[in-house]
Amino acid sequence: MSLASEIGEQPAVAARLLGPGRAAIEAITERIGPLLRDRSVDNVVIAARGSSDHAAIYAQYLFGARLRLPVALATPSLISIYGVEPRLDRSLVVGISQSGRSPDIVGVIAAARRQGAPTIALTNDPTSDLAAAAGDAIDLAAGPEVAVAATKTYTAELLAIALLAIALERHVPLDGPAPDPEPDLASLPAALAAALATEPEAEAVARFLSAGQRDRLIVVGRGYEYATAREIALKLKELARVAADPYSAADFLHGPLALAEPGHPILVLAPSGAAAADVDELLGRLGEVGVERIVVSDREEAVRLGAVGIRLPAVADWLMPIVSIVPGQLLARHLAIARGLDPEAPRWIGKVTLTR
Amino acid sequence: MSLASEIGEQPAVAARLLGPGRAAIEAITERIGPLLRDRSVDNVVIAARGSSDHAAIYAQYLFGARLRLPVALATPSLISIYGVEPRLDRSLVVGISQSGRSPDIVGVIAAARRQGAPTIALTNDPTSDLAAAAGDAIDLAAGPEVAVAATKTYTAELLAIALLAIALERHVPLDGPAPDPEPDLASLPAALAAALATEPEAEAVARFLSAGQRDRLIVVGRGYEYATAREIALKLKELARVAADPYSAADFLHGPLALAEPGHPILVLAPSGAAAADVDELLGRLGEVGVERIVVSDREEAVRLGAVGIRLPAVADWLMPIVSIVPGQLLARHLAIARGLDPEAPRWIGKVTLTR
Repeated sequence: MSLASEIGEQPAVAARLLGPGRAAIEAITERIGPLLRDRSVDNVVIAARGSSDHAAIYAQYLFGARLRLPVALATPSLISIYGVEPRLDRSLVVGISQSGRSPDIVGVIAAARRQGAPTIALTNDPTSDLAAAAGDAIDLAAGPEVAVAATKTYTAELLAIALLAIALERHVPLDGPAPDPEPDLASLPAALAAALATEPEAEAVARFLSAGQRDRLIVVGRGYEYATAREIALKLKELARVAADPYSAADFLHGPLALAEPGHPILVLAPSGAAAADVDELLGRLGEVGVERIVVSDREEAVRLGAVGIRLPAVADWLMPIVSIVPGQLLARHLAIARGLDPEAPRWIGKVTLTR
Repeated sequence: MSLASEIGEQPAVAARLLGPGRAAIEAITERIGPLLRDRSVDNVVIAARGSSDHAAIYAQYLFGARLRLPVALATPSLISIYGVEPRLDRSLVVGISQSGRSPDIVGVIAAARRQGAPTIALTNDPTSDLAAAAGDAIDLAAGPEVAVAATKTYTAELLAIALLAIALERHVPLDGPAPDPEPDLASLPAALAAALATEPEAEAVARFLSAGQRDRLIVVGRGYEYATAREIALKLKELARVAADPYSAADFLHGPLALAEPGHPILVLAPSGAAAADVDELLGRLGEVGVERIVVSDREEAVRLGAVGIRLPAVADWLMPIVSIVPGQLLARHLAIARGLDPEAPRWIGKVTLTR
């Protein structure tokens, strides 16, 4: 039962990062912040795979919104397959990996460091190759993660990224005063506990999907929640073998909307925040087409639009992805069980994937 | 029958871009090349949606491999929803859009130009908002595209990107002499004509999928061919309503491999080139698992591994995505017909999608 217990540990993991973990992150930004201020570094490159790649997508939005930095997701095969190193000496280069062991991710960080770029490893193993290759390493300190599917290390990666952004913010000149992030951060462990309490609702969604023999699902989010859409879809594939297809709400309208039909349900992440109006418009359009909507939101009126839904606790939109993924993890686990699969042991894949 | 005829026009569209279109692209790089040389511009940001986003992925690999530039795909909602402009004044900012009309893409280009960044629009409508917003515009000159699904404008976007990279290469100091791209480019129109001649094989793959009632498909490519995997999957969704799920071969191993099983076929793009060894390894692993493989390759021994397959003409790997998408377009059209759908009129979507 390691998956269930690791999902349950997430409030404690977050509290640990917010407490003792935070000072280490702030120390790193004392060195990197001045490089952003004088613009000797003017963009960010992130190398990651799988769930960690979804943490990178969160960083893309958060570093854009809070630090005005363009963020590129690295294409590690440029180095590992085509043998060409992009010029990274004006980039902050971040490698994200639970195990810290995938050679292609280590390769990007090693190349960037050779070129003189500031490099940060985000990993749950501070003794890993990735941590050794980087100039600085942030230890997720999530404790051993035994289940094949990443859960507590994913939310720890998101929170470490949020803390990194907040700490860097103090070094980067802004147009006006930034809103105080502390009340938002302080609310996180309780919000994670509340998200765990959605388990009966997640189980009801799992029953809805398994009763209808629905093995295709579209997952849609926008802005910050695009990362959540991607990560929920991956959990559903790994654990429940559902062909779950994630989109940003905008990209979904550029073609894949043609898939929408009764019997091909769509899970929509629709929390409060700047993206809510846009997502509500999509919810309306899907309703006209007769698609079964599964709505995940802190807004009662949005949840009520769905055939089934999950009520999120209220959290600031920039931190919501740390919370909104939790019912997705619970859904994937319960759907696996409902479909007669063992959520502890997805077939073909191991805990550590080494790609070049 | 506009879709079929537009697919068939692709050799002529490419010949036009290689001829009269090329001088205009070279003129633009006379202004932008020096900014790359002195590194007042040191990264690229590309804004695009749908098929054009897949052209942006091609650019990510090509500009990385030939120009050593980090390339970020823009997150337009940062500007349109969160109201924050990333600092783009040290970026070359490119907007790609067939129609040139989507407000979120125009918004990124307008913001970048206000900040003083060099901006380029790639569009099939030189009178569009996007062309007007950008400092420079490249006219794809593909002629009117009437079918909802983009085909000739997609390959024109790829070729324009290739010509842009080649022209910029002359301005960027390299470690050694670059291999002459001209013979590779000169072979393109004939290779596109040869790709059109794969229609009977594409039709056989469509029969294989429709006979088995297979409405789920995984599409895998690596490196340059990741863009093709994404674009084939989108065509299959738009036209044939197949739940087609695209991956890079490396990301596929980080979780989604759990989906692999008999009855859930996998189309693998496996052309010659630097990525071939890696893709062959995946083909072997899929064979052990008993998955039906559909192989698209110029290598006879790779095609023979598949239950069905498509033989590509031989083309240099950096230009192969312009060619390898063509059988994918033909497959999507024939699969739509085999499934009783009208490939000229996908439901719910129009030719121009306006997202904010």
